Amino acid sequence: MNPRPAPDFHVTRWLNTPSAPELQTLKGRVVMILAFQMLCPGCAVQALPQARRVRTLFKEEDLMVLGLHTVFEHHEAQGPEAALKAFLHEHRIDFPVGIDAPGDNAAALPLTMQHYRMQGTPTLILLDRLGHIRKHRFGHTEDLLLGAEIMSLILEPPQTD
Amino acid sequence: MNPRPAPDFHVTRWLNTPSAPELQTLKGRVVMILAFQMLCPGCAVQALPQARRVRTLFKEEDLMVLGLHTVFEHHEAQGPEAALKAFLHEHRIDFPVGIDAPGDNAAALPLTMQHYRMQGTPTLILLDRLGHIRKHRFGHTEDLLLGAEIMSLILEPPQTD
Amino acid sequence: MNPRPAPDFHVTRWLNTPSAPELQTLKGRVVMILAFQMLCPGCAVQALPQARRVRTLFKEEDLMVLGLHTVFEHHEAQGPEAALKAFLHEHRIDFPVGIDAPGDNAAALPLTMQHYRMQGTPTLILLDRLGHIRKHRFGHTEDLLLGAEIMSLILEPPQTD
Amino acid sequence: MNPRPAPDFHVTRWLNTPSAPELQTLKGRVVMILAFQMLCPGCAVQALPQARRVRTLFKEEDLMVLGLHTVFEHHEAQGPEAALKAFLHEHRIDFPVGIDAPGDNAAALPLTMQHYRMQGTPTLILLDRLGHIRKHRFGHTEDLLLGAEIMSLILEPPQTD
Repeated sequence: MNPRPAPDFHVTRWLNTPSAPELQTLKGRVVMILAFQMLCPGCAVQALPQARRVRTLFKEEDLMVLGLHTVFEHHEAQGPEAALKAFLHEHRIDFPVGIDAPGDNAAALPLTMQHYRMQGTPTLILLDRLGHIRKHRFGHTEDLLLGAEIMSLILEPPQTD
Repeated sequence: MNPRPAPDFHVTRWLNTPSAPELQTLKGRVVMILAFQMLCPGCAVQALPQARRVRTLFKEEDLMVLGLHTVFEHHEAQGPEAALKAFLHEHRIDFPVGIDAPGDNAAALPLTMQHYRMQGTPTLILLDRLGHIRKHRFGHTEDLLLGAEIMSLILEPPQTD
Repeated sequence: MNPRPAPDFHVTRWLNTPSAPELQTLKGRVVMILAFQMLCPGCAVQALPQARRVRTLFKEEDLMVLGLHTVFEHHEAQGPEAALKAFLHEHRIDFPVGIDAPGDNAAALPLTMQHYRMQGTPTLILLDRLGHIRKHRFGHTEDLLLGAEIMSLILEPPQTD
Repeated sequence: MNPRPAPDFHVTRWLNTPSAPELQTLKGRVVMILAFQMLCPGCAVQALPQARRVRTLFKEEDLMVLGLHTVFEHHEAQGPEAALKAFLHEHRIDFPVGIDAPGDNAAALPLTMQHYRMQGTPTLILLDRLGHIRKHRFGHTEDLLLGAEIMSLILEPPQTD
C-alpha cells in the first residue's frame, strides 16, 4: 500500500475555531474530514450526527474531526457564510468547519473537493498520523466499521515518513 | 367543543403550486399545515419526512398538505427564497409551501405564525372540512396517532357551518 | 364490497384475560387480531411493539386488540404454554392472546390460521363492528396507514348486519 | 491495569459448532462473548443483531464471536435445547452458542454467569488475545464504541503472558 499525502486545504474561512487547522500542524494526529453541504439530506440526517458522535467518543489529541463545506450546487442558498453559521448552530456542530474555496468558474467544483477527487456529499476521509489519505468514501459508513477504522489508525505504531 | 376558524394565511409567496391555496377554496377538504424552518433539525429529520409520508398516503381530494416556512430566527440564512427553494428541491418536498410574511419589525414573529399562536417549529395543525382548527401541536407527533387523527377528520359527516 | 364474516376462533386457551373473547360478544367493537409466533423476528421486533402502541392509543371500548399464537413450525419450542407466557411477560404484552388450536396432524396449520387463510406471521387482521374481515395483511404495516385504517373502522356509522 | 484471566466456560452443550471453543485454544484471537437469554427483548432487538454485524465485519482469525445462553429465569420456556435451536435458526445466529450450565439449585445463576459475575442480559465481554477480560458491560453498547474497542484489542502488539 502506498497512500498518497493529503492535498492541502483551500479554504476561504474556518468556522468554530480560532486558527486554521493546517495539515502540517495536524500531523501526529488522525484526522477525519467530513465533506458536506448543508442542504444535502444524507448529510443532515446521517453523516453530521455521526460526526458528532465520533467527536464525542475519541480524544481530541488522538483524532481531529473537521468539516468541509463543499458547495457545488445551490450556491445562492448554501454559499453565504451566515447560512452555514446558522446551520451549524442549529445542528449543534461545534468542530471546525472550513468553507471550501470556489473553483475557477461557476460550474467548477470547489478547490479542495477537486484536489481530493470527491464524488459528492457526504464524503468521509480518514488521514493517518502522517497525513496520508487512508480511507475515502462517498455515502454512508456504518458506525461499527467507522469506529474500527478510526481506532486502527489511532493505534498505528509511530513511524517516520 | 367549539373550534375556532383558521386565520387566513399571510404569505408573501407560495412555492410548488401555480396558485395560492386560500383557506376559502380549501373548504371541503381536510388540511394539514406543517410550519417549519429549513434549518430546524427536528423539521428536517422528522417532521418533513412525515409530511411526505402523509402526502403519499392520503388522496389529495381528501387531504391537502401545506408547508408554511415560518422564519423567526436566522433570517439572513433562511430568509432568501432561493435558499428555501434549494432546500425543498434537495429534501424532495413537492407539496405547496408558503413563505410566512414577516412581522412588523425584525424581532416580531412572522404574521401567520402570530395569528395561529404557534410556539415554534415544527408545529402541525389540522383543519377540518369546514376550515376549523382541530389539532395544533408543537413538536413531534407519532405516525399512528397522526394517521388516526387525519382519518377521523376525513370521515366526519358533512355538516353546515 | 362484500366482506366475509370472521370465522370463529379455535383456541385451546386464552392468556391475559379472565374470559375468552368470543367474536359474538366482540360485535360492536373494532377488533385487531395480530397472528404471531414468539420466535418470528419480524413479530418480536416490529409487529408486537406496534400492537402495544395500538393498544395504548385507542380506547378499549372502541378497539379490542387480540393476539393469536399461530404456531406452525418449531412446535417443541413454541408449543409449551409456559414458553409463551414467559415471552408475553418479558415483552410486556398485556392484551389477550389466544393459543391457536393445533391442526389435525403434525404438518397441518393450526385451525384458526387455516380458517382465516393466513400466509404466515406476522399477519394483521381488522374486523369492523359487525365482525366482518376488512383488512388482512401478511408482513409489516406502516403506523400511519394502520392508524388511519383503524380510525376509519371505528368511525363507521352504525348499521344493521 | 491488571486484567483478570477469563474463567473457563461451564457449558453443557455448544450449538452451531462441531467442537467446543475452549478458552485455551482461543488464545491468540480476540473473543467477544455475548451473554443473552432468548426471551430478553433487549437481546433479541439490539444485542444479537449487533453481534451478527460484528461477526460479519471482522475476520474470524482476528475475532471469535461467541454467544452464551445464560438462563436465569423462565427455565421451563428457555431451558429446552430445542427452544434455543429454533430461536437461533429464526434469528439467523450462526456463530457458536454455548448453553451455560445450571447452578447448584433452581434459584442459582448458571455457572459461567456466576464465575464472570454478570449482572443480567445482555452482557458483552471482550477478551484480549491472551485470554484476559478487558471489557465487561451490562446493557447496550453503541456500535461506534464497540467497533473501536474490538479493533483496539485486535491491534494490540503481541506479548507474552
